[in-house]
Amino acid sequence: MKNQTNYTMLCDFYELSMANGYFQTPMKDRITYFDVFFRHVPDDGGFAIAAGLEQIVDYIQELHFTEEDIAYLRNHGDFTDGFLDYLKDFKFTGDIWAIPEGTPVFPGEPILTVRAPAVQAQFLETYILLQLNHQSLIATKANRIVRSADGRPVAEFGSRRAQGASGAILGARATYIGGCSSTACVQADRDYGVPAGGTMAHSWVQMFPDEYTAFKTYCQLYPHNATLLVDTYNVLHSGVPNAIKVFQEELLPKGITKCAIRIDSGDLAYLSRKARKMLDEAGLTECKIVASNALDEYLIRDLIQQGAKLDSFGVGERMITAESDPVFGCVYKLAAIEDENGTIIPKIKISENAAKITTPHFKKVYRLYDNESGNAFADVLCLHDEIIDDSKPIELFDPENTWKKSLFTNFTAKSMLVQVFKNGELVYDLPSIEEIRAYCANQINLLWDEVKRFENPHNYYVDLSQKLWDIKNDMLEHMRNL
Amino acid sequence: MKNQTNYTMLCDFYELSMANGYFQTPMKDRITYFDVFFRHVPDDGGFAIAAGLEQIVDYIQELHFTEEDIAYLRNHGDFTDGFLDYLKDFKFTGDIWAIPEGTPVFPGEPILTVRAPAVQAQFLETYILLQLNHQSLIATKANRIVRSADGRPVAEFGSRRAQGASGAILGARATYIGGCSSTACVQADRDYGVPAGGTMAHSWVQMFPDEYTAFKTYCQLYPHNATLLVDTYNVLHSGVPNAIKVFQEELLPKGITKCAIRIDSGDLAYLSRKARKMLDEAGLTECKIVASNALDEYLIRDLIQQGAKLDSFGVGERMITAESDPVFGCVYKLAAIEDENGTIIPKIKISENAAKITTPHFKKVYRLYDNESGNAFADVLCLHDEIIDDSKPIELFDPENTWKKSLFTNFTAKSMLVQVFKNGELVYDLPSIEEIRAYCANQINLLWDEVKRFENPHNYYVDLSQKLWDIKNDMLEHMRNL
Repeated sequence: MKNQTNYTMLCDFYELSMANGYFQTPMKDRITYFDVFFRHVPDDGGFAIAAGLEQIVDYIQELHFTEEDIAYLRNHGDFTDGFLDYLKDFKFTGDIWAIPEGTPVFPGEPILTVRAPAVQAQFLETYILLQLNHQSLIATKANRIVRSADGRPVAEFGSRRAQGASGAILGARATYIGGCSSTACVQADRDYGVPAGGTMAHSWVQMFPDEYTAFKTYCQLYPHNATLLVDTYNVLHSGVPNAIKVFQEELLPKGITKCAIRIDSGDLAYLSRKARKMLDEAGLTECKIVASNALDEYLIRDLIQQGAKLDSFGVGERMITAESDPVFGCVYKLAAIEDENGTIIPKIKISENAAKITTPHFKKVYRLYDNESGNAFADVLCLHDEIIDDSKPIELFDPENTWKKSLFTNFTAKSMLVQVFKNGELVYDLPSIEEIRAYCANQINLLWDEVKRFENPHNYYVDLSQKLWDIKNDMLEHMRNL
Repeated sequence: MKNQTNYTMLCDFYELSMANGYFQTPMKDRITYFDVFFRHVPDDGGFAIAAGLEQIVDYIQELHFTEEDIAYLRNHGDFTDGFLDYLKDFKFTGDIWAIPEGTPVFPGEPILTVRAPAVQAQFLETYILLQLNHQSLIATKANRIVRSADGRPVAEFGSRRAQGASGAILGARATYIGGCSSTACVQADRDYGVPAGGTMAHSWVQMFPDEYTAFKTYCQLYPHNATLLVDTYNVLHSGVPNAIKVFQEELLPKGITKCAIRIDSGDLAYLSRKARKMLDEAGLTECKIVASNALDEYLIRDLIQQGAKLDSFGVGERMITAESDPVFGCVYKLAAIEDENGTIIPKIKISENAAKITTPHFKKVYRLYDNESGNAFADVLCLHDEIIDDSKPIELFDPENTWKKSLFTNFTAKSMLVQVFKNGELVYDLPSIEEIRAYCANQINLLWDEVKRFENPHNYYVDLSQKLWDIKNDMLEHMRNL
């Protein structure tokens, strides 16, 4: 079951100002190409994870202006009647290519390309960016946290601190793509199949006359799913002893050894080691210890290094908001237009800041995998009709320092952008969330460790084909001579 | 027109585990009191702004489990049939008090209190926190940015970088409460009455054969609302001269002098001073200069100090995500329960960290205003049935350093929590967004400048009445002796 909300009106007002403008000029039906790309990986990481495409598909399929929308716009006063009439039947008739959800992606490469008449292509900007920025941000952050946990499950706990309802729900979806094993958010399970679970808050413990009774009642109700929160009063003097007593009285006689305690405050390294010892001595060697409380990838890594006896983690605010770097900077830039004959005219946006200059033209992205290790070693942007023949050696050069050249052989080249819409029709078979999650883990396994480290990761190569580099360079020269 | 989405399932799974648990025990109908409060103002500010109440009202009025929700829960397998049957008619029948939206609020005080049977009160936790945390975060951040602009309008531009759709839409609502003058987000205007506007992106300029033609076309289409983006190629050598030419050709002959340019990159202080001079020399003294590009309160304050000639600001990602401190930490804590006779039994949550100890009991919040200056100088938490008589002097003491005492006279005491729901019925007349925004500005005017500064603000007093302090202290003593 999906949230079929119509987000047509979730656009920046200038998209409508421009659309109404294009509509009055011959630009209206001019075919344009827009690229989505980002310039910087959050947290100075070595790669990001693309996410949000499924919601963009939903959006485009639902795209329409209701009578109320049009009445609202008419009331606003800036739009012509002709344009407002046109909006009544507005729908997307163009093409979209995208890198599939769950793919590691790198700065400067198109992760989505729209080809459509100017009015339409411009209009999609806000929502496409919003979805890709939000979900890629959270999937990328979640993956850092999951990697820090080194195989231990990470549960998403952050709904209450998320930035709005969709921040919670689709945020949970993105953390699952990034490798989390579950969420606390019920709606993310109902709507997107992210497994949800959860047991008790401190208030449960406080509601009963004492902690023992609270634990006892819970284990009687849920003998097969008892995770007891042990820090309401005192972890080692009250919480753990009461948990042990109740597990021994309620679970062990029934042959149930699968249980857990959760520690949500205090020195997690110290408390978990002490608690582990107490549980083991009581014969509860299979009882798991879960930690929560403002965790992130650095704290989890530190806890593990300190020998904390923790079996899994619940992570809230720092993951669901990507607290340490909460903005993903995808932009939506014009890359080309077609003239009346369908010839593609590349467009470039220059800037005093070299890193902000765009790469023009309708493009393809190839990822090159080393045949020996299987690992990805470079992405190459080229023209839409170029083909990289991986039976031949390839010479790559750094697009900024072009003297840095390397020759590669024995590799496989994979074209990364898949067609999602063709003439407005969905032509892409959307993978399930489980498929996306598995694909994501698999693709990250194919990155070198140097790209994956948290500090000073290796800059993965994103190079241009000679043809594309020549076009870009010619356009820059031409601009310089204006 | 409002988004009537049913967010009943936007809850943490443990709320359902506990609800199902309470339902099996006599706790089910036990009346409980939960307080929402926060411990720390984001960005180390001196106050926060409460926001999100209207969406909580919407949520509670829409609260119900659909057949699909119940089927989903049944399928999950952890709930009894009795509980699932009960959910079919689940609705809120309790009381809610809240501090109105737009009010400056301080750490430790209840900004919302729920009184309801345990199952219901527990269930509301996630959504209430989510809304108050999100919108208070963004309203508080927006207000910092608005104050830094020192009277110049601030427009919200951040939808594309927001954390999800509601992050964009309700985020825009919160920025308006915090004092922004407009938004780019069309849906925030349609659904919540936040004035939306916007003119052109770089792509508009790139789409035409040259910048002059792009500007000319725009001014012909929108002579009364022309804000030209002048940094696509070169601000001072191309953008501003072309804008001047077009304004002179298209607007001045029609007697239109209201126009603007927007600078979105480069050295905004330098470029704006140069552009101002060029515009003035061309007779366009009424042409405004708008700045955008990753602005926040610190950059805006610096620009103004550097003598930048900027008339207004467009602020995106750093406001819509509260980038510098993107989590608002409201918690939802049990404060009391009622016994069978309706006697209120206070509850406390202790912690090794003194700042995390909760203040027990069903409470009231008074704000004390100095009669001479009109300024607020302290908030006092007291028992629900205590009355502060402002015709008599009041002695306040610091709840942590109780030897710090002061006697105050000549003040007005205002009770801050208003009743919103009574026996499940809405009894509060929700103010309009314009009323909330005006009230917010007014209330902030009543704070001392020392509370409002960005660095090291004065700690506003949030004190306890003697009665409440005694109860809290007795409970702590009792816990200590256990």
